[in-house]
Amino acid sequence: MEASVTRAGGPAALRRVPLPELERLRTLDADPAERAGAFADACRLNVLYMIARAGSGHIGTSFSSIDVVSWLHLEVLREGDRYFSSKGHDAPGLYAVLIALGRLPFEKLDRLRRLGGLPGHPDVLTTPEVVTNTGSLGMGISKAKGFVLADRLAGRSGRVFVLTGDGELQEGQFWESLASAANRGLHEITAIVDHNRIQSDFWVADVSDLGDLQRKVEAFGWAVARCDGNDPRSLGPALEDLDRSAPDRPKLMIADTLKGAGVSFMEPHGLPPGGDELYAYHSGAPSPDEYARATAEIEERLTRRLEALGEAPVALEAAEAPAGSAPANPQKLMPAYGEALAEVAESEPRLVALDADLMLDTGLIPFRKRHPDRFFECGIAEQDMVSQAAAMALAGLVPAVHSFGCFLSTRPNEQIYNQCTEGTKVIYAGSLVGLVPGGPGHSHQSVRDISALGAMPGMSLLEPCSEHEARLCVEWAVREAPGSVYIRLVSVPWELGFEPPAPERLSPGRGQVLRTGADAVIVGAGPVVLSQAFAAAELLAERGVECMVVDLPWLRDVDGAWLAELAAGAPIVCVDNHYLTGGQSDAVASALTTQDVAPVSLVRKIGVDRVPECGTNDEVLRAHGLDAEGIAERVVAELPARV
Amino acid sequence: MEASVTRAGGPAALRRVPLPELERLRTLDADPAERAGAFADACRLNVLYMIARAGSGHIGTSFSSIDVVSWLHLEVLREGDRYFSSKGHDAPGLYAVLIALGRLPFEKLDRLRRLGGLPGHPDVLTTPEVVTNTGSLGMGISKAKGFVLADRLAGRSGRVFVLTGDGELQEGQFWESLASAANRGLHEITAIVDHNRIQSDFWVADVSDLGDLQRKVEAFGWAVARCDGNDPRSLGPALEDLDRSAPDRPKLMIADTLKGAGVSFMEPHGLPPGGDELYAYHSGAPSPDEYARATAEIEERLTRRLEALGEAPVALEAAEAPAGSAPANPQKLMPAYGEALAEVAESEPRLVALDADLMLDTGLIPFRKRHPDRFFECGIAEQDMVSQAAAMALAGLVPAVHSFGCFLSTRPNEQIYNQCTEGTKVIYAGSLVGLVPGGPGHSHQSVRDISALGAMPGMSLLEPCSEHEARLCVEWAVREAPGSVYIRLVSVPWELGFEPPAPERLSPGRGQVLRTGADAVIVGAGPVVLSQAFAAAELLAERGVECMVVDLPWLRDVDGAWLAELAAGAPIVCVDNHYLTGGQSDAVASALTTQDVAPVSLVRKIGVDRVPECGTNDEVLRAHGLDAEGIAERVVAELPARV
Repeated sequence: MEASVTRAGGPAALRRVPLPELERLRTLDADPAERAGAFADACRLNVLYMIARAGSGHIGTSFSSIDVVSWLHLEVLREGDRYFSSKGHDAPGLYAVLIALGRLPFEKLDRLRRLGGLPGHPDVLTTPEVVTNTGSLGMGISKAKGFVLADRLAGRSGRVFVLTGDGELQEGQFWESLASAANRGLHEITAIVDHNRIQSDFWVADVSDLGDLQRKVEAFGWAVARCDGNDPRSLGPALEDLDRSAPDRPKLMIADTLKGAGVSFMEPHGLPPGGDELYAYHSGAPSPDEYARATAEIEERLTRRLEALGEAPVALEAAEAPAGSAPANPQKLMPAYGEALAEVAESEPRLVALDADLMLDTGLIPFRKRHPDRFFECGIAEQDMVSQAAAMALAGLVPAVHSFGCFLSTRPNEQIYNQCTEGTKVIYAGSLVGLVPGGPGHSHQSVRDISALGAMPGMSLLEPCSEHEARLCVEWAVREAPGSVYIRLVSVPWELGFEPPAPERLSPGRGQVLRTGADAVIVGAGPVVLSQAFAAAELLAERGVECMVVDLPWLRDVDGAWLAELAAGAPIVCVDNHYLTGGQSDAVASALTTQDVAPVSLVRKIGVDRVPECGTNDEVLRAHGLDAEGIAERVVAELPARV
Repeated sequence: MEASVTRAGGPAALRRVPLPELERLRTLDADPAERAGAFADACRLNVLYMIARAGSGHIGTSFSSIDVVSWLHLEVLREGDRYFSSKGHDAPGLYAVLIALGRLPFEKLDRLRRLGGLPGHPDVLTTPEVVTNTGSLGMGISKAKGFVLADRLAGRSGRVFVLTGDGELQEGQFWESLASAANRGLHEITAIVDHNRIQSDFWVADVSDLGDLQRKVEAFGWAVARCDGNDPRSLGPALEDLDRSAPDRPKLMIADTLKGAGVSFMEPHGLPPGGDELYAYHSGAPSPDEYARATAEIEERLTRRLEALGEAPVALEAAEAPAGSAPANPQKLMPAYGEALAEVAESEPRLVALDADLMLDTGLIPFRKRHPDRFFECGIAEQDMVSQAAAMALAGLVPAVHSFGCFLSTRPNEQIYNQCTEGTKVIYAGSLVGLVPGGPGHSHQSVRDISALGAMPGMSLLEPCSEHEARLCVEWAVREAPGSVYIRLVSVPWELGFEPPAPERLSPGRGQVLRTGADAVIVGAGPVVLSQAFAAAELLAERGVECMVVDLPWLRDVDGAWLAELAAGAPIVCVDNHYLTGGQSDAVASALTTQDVAPVSLVRKIGVDRVPECGTNDEVLRAHGLDAEGIAERVVAELPARV
């Protein structure tokens, strides 16, 4: 999972382990466990470097799993074997290992979460060393089975090693996938659970306790063993024993690890269970001070390790960190949403909130604090969450359900439909929507949610562009909406570049004119689209082209007559922070051509036309032509006769 | 799950147990187990009556579970308790019990799967006695949890009894839902597994063996017990013992039952495991002979039971069966699809097929027979199936993945997206799409699949109207498609009313003119829409209005220029066997208004504007205005100035 907040102010100078030094460690003439320990620490230094430079990334899980990943790549994997991580957000760790092995270009160390670089989650098309796309949880064992079955059919005999999280095991697909692996005797599969006991920001036991994991998985017919996953001296022999003990069965190793392992202050020592305190290093970049302290601690340990082996310390090289910039006056929709929900709940006792392990990212901390008995943490179990909410709604409550838009609109898609057919009201709040943040990559860039939810009967789909509008959405959803509502929320704090309008309430199907102009009408929703559209209109004005810009928070039910009257014959350009198909622009086109409205000369669609790129926010918007310049160019190019 | 084939020729006269007789059995002064046994048999007679009259329904599971359902309703459930079936397709059994208890009107016995009657799967809006909508599998425990949490919040203390199938337990959501029930100590929940060991048409052990179910569920922290679910003398005490043994934990009872229990030839005695032979009474109506024999056997046993209690035999009353009619010359897309897939596989060795427990309904029997090593039965585990296929595609295979459209487009929605982002090709074949068959109800009427899959990057969406076109779709998908393909298949054999065109190959974005006419152009896909559109055009011709009818099998990528040229300025009416949002009509409207095509005067959309009705095929099409008369009326009404 992916926090949307990045620690401000990157370190001025960063240090990395250069390739020759990595090569030296990889080929150390030493006990394999000693070598792997030193190798993993060098990779930890490069993980810190990558994430500090990128400004975001998952340190905690990269560090908890890196001893496993290092050991597998140094000592276990053979030609024809496959390794991948099912959780995927430990990608910086994998990249550091592959770079150290010379299997990825060293220069890529500077390009984590950058356009043309290494995506925030693994991607086969941009990173050929990657085995399969992950980032969405719970798919790993299923994919391992597919590889083994395909290999068997082709007469190949490779093994598949798949790393999973422990919080990830809350996903039903994990359990769904176990049975046939056992029934088919897929002994080629070894799953390794990175059992760091913290999911996102909280203890797994507090979110949704896994119980006796070993007993559970054994009951499914798998061979299960346990080891210290941060100690190659434990991991190595344990893997060998497990392999020998079950020649005809799939295997699962519970690797006990520490989140943030290898940096004492990033390990969760003293983090109280059951409390409000968050684990601080799940995602985001370290502060300059944290970076310096963490690097010093790892370097010192690595030096000691090498000394013990009679080797010289590793010489790190310095590299300049790129300067980051934060918006000066951003709209922060998630806190606004969360505060509004907690506030509305004061006067609506039926309102309850459900969360799927993202309470920080979906703004739910205030709600949990003010209404603890009405807050239900469901863990990474979106299907279960939605069906629970459906029953609560039948029992008279008004549940608000939360996850990232990419997961919420898809994973429980049938469960949401089932709820909608019951004629009840559930509020679905999907955060982290759209192209940005661009760093996590396409598994987390929710640009398909409007389409996936667009045909839910009776559901309204709303996307606010400002904190004020986010509050209006909550109030409308709770107090006025006749059926279920999807509230689509951009997570990243975002500067609008215009004063957001402040109407008293939402007007169904209609929006706000942000800027007038008679040459064309640009229509969109959300802070990203509208900030860029507004800036595009300003650019076009410099060229003598005056565009109206309309904030239309309704993504599906569009008042075509109102819009046509506004347009007064001018061409309409829809901008979608979504794929071209099934987004708001289809709703606008449909409203304008199939309703009884004044004739509209033309509707143009600007949106995402391919799998989203990964990069900085600016890079990604530009790559997809959704920055101000891109929109301005498209308006001019598409409407030459008119503009 | 729902077979699309109904046994032809209903019995001429049917017999039912009248209300006074049901009342007599319900209040028999006898041992509760004896009373429940007699009551259940009377309900069995009425289940047979309902299903024979409706022409379809699930006898096997209604019979396996009816002793449990009867016992719960007669002896266990108290005010404030809830009972529902998670699998839902045992609805006829539940209806028969509720009718016998006087909680549903007796007349509804004649209205199973009819408009305004009792839907094929439970529905809260049309049947107030129903607790929650089911029919899509695996949601039951989650919903039970939601009810209990809502009750606790409101200070209510009801218990929740939820019946599940055993094949249903292959769904990941079942396992996903177990953990928090144990962690929260939801002792109010008792799940009862109707453990009849057959799912759809095959043995569970052959499809995807559950292994040691008791051990598995116990490992999740639930209290588990086992009993004979067709014998109230076993079930009753076992439920009491389980309740006493676990006052603070959720409970699960494995009720061993026989599918078709109570009619010897409907029980699976002698059905060989691992074989090709199908269990014959999962769904569909009995033949006249089967009806007569089954009724006689139950009646005879019931008479013996009553004799032993010193009671008179039950007096059944006869009622006329409605006459059914079968199409004379229907297009049967599923066999055509299945044969084509098996055929194409001869020359494409990379082609493999995956199925989610619907190999009969998705036409896969020929493929399994001809290519057994390339056929993978995955069980009711759509997410697992799709992720396996994704890995197979990465490993060089061309997987074709099968389920009903309503499940395939939704349950693994995120898994399909994950696969599409990998740039591989997987063929998704969704059957049972659209409004008909109208009997199963909205959980099975796939009218949202185009929207749910519409924004998958690189995916083509196709719907054939004829056996010939189904073959072309398979050939194009396997041999030509650059990316993944969704093939949308109407299952019910359907009479077109016109000679289907027979082009040699598909032409991307374009279709076939079925009928010419200059007043309006009616565009659609699939046999249901096109048969009704063609007939509507014939009706309109009688009134002097000449409509062109276009078969456009491309649901998303529409060649707008081609279509605009065909229309030559005439208004275009799109007919969708799908919700109005996100279906083919949105693609047409978008293509015509946003591409550089000749001006189009108007696009009108006809489609499904609310949750689909349940009824006979004719009833449902008429209710939604998608029969020939409805379409003709809409064309005239919507285009008054032009037509």
